[in-house]
Amino acid sequence: MSVTDEYLKNNEAYAAQFDGPLPLPPSKHVAVVACMDARLDVYRILGLNEGEAHVIRNAGGVVTDDEIRSLAISQRLLGTKEIILIHHTDCGMLTFTDDDFKNGIQDEIGIKPNWAAEAFPDLDADVRQSIARIEQSPFVTKHESLRGFVFDVATGKLNEVTA
Amino acid sequence: MSVTDEYLKNNEAYAAQFDGPLPLPPSKHVAVVACMDARLDVYRILGLNEGEAHVIRNAGGVVTDDEIRSLAISQRLLGTKEIILIHHTDCGMLTFTDDDFKNGIQDEIGIKPNWAAEAFPDLDADVRQSIARIEQSPFVTKHESLRGFVFDVATGKLNEVTA
Repeated sequence: MSVTDEYLKNNEAYAAQFDGPLPLPPSKHVAVVACMDARLDVYRILGLNEGEAHVIRNAGGVVTDDEIRSLAISQRLLGTKEIILIHHTDCGMLTFTDDDFKNGIQDEIGIKPNWAAEAFPDLDADVRQSIARIEQSPFVTKHESLRGFVFDVATGKLNEVTA
Repeated sequence: MSVTDEYLKNNEAYAAQFDGPLPLPPSKHVAVVACMDARLDVYRILGLNEGEAHVIRNAGGVVTDDEIRSLAISQRLLGTKEIILIHHTDCGMLTFTDDDFKNGIQDEIGIKPNWAAEAFPDLDADVRQSIARIEQSPFVTKHESLRGFVFDVATGKLNEVTA
């Protein structure tokens, strides 16, 4: 049995106790951008209930065009007003460089990705980079709050990154 | 008090009962790509435990260059072997078109996004589109399983999209 099949089995139990539909727009008007890291159960870390906040995630929790797209849709069509950015300690993105990763792919398959891998050497600096990219975007302007944090995978605590 | 501050308060309770660090690589070797929709608590829907699977999310749960980037890092650096795609009923992406969204932004601020909004009129067809984009990518090739689902926000159930 694949892990996917195990998870589908879990979903049967979830559906059996499911409470019925909630409204589409996030009730707390929040959008979270977090790393895809398996240890970050964003709903538990923030105490989110279902239906409260959009959750956007990728390798690193970085802000690229696709996060600008998602945040623009979140704000302009679904009314979110606060943005929470979450990077974390022991992140995989700290362990390589864009050049090494992309050259490795080119060496193996002969094609080099035409996108940045978005590796970074410093967590706080990259949270600030994500904040700067959002602040610079003409498409994500409807928020009243934009704050960035580093989640500590050893303690479970969010530590704010200040300017 | 902002909602962000409320969530930081919740995080204190989470950290107080936190159990210490897990390893970086996903223990179940799975990567999930899901919509950012607030009602999709992916860990609960699949019965994921912390540390088991990468979770990538964006508006629609679509596959763009940034999801290819995240999946390539997930597979090549952190050893994931299965991909699970999750769209859902009552999705915001069904309610507009790229042209309307982008022209609306241009009308308001004078600048038209140079990216696709990735709206779609049909859930199953867009899950198949995401599968096709992954299958076509030279950078995401290490998986043994790639399956797509539509989560029903009325029942909590995952329904598989077949070819």
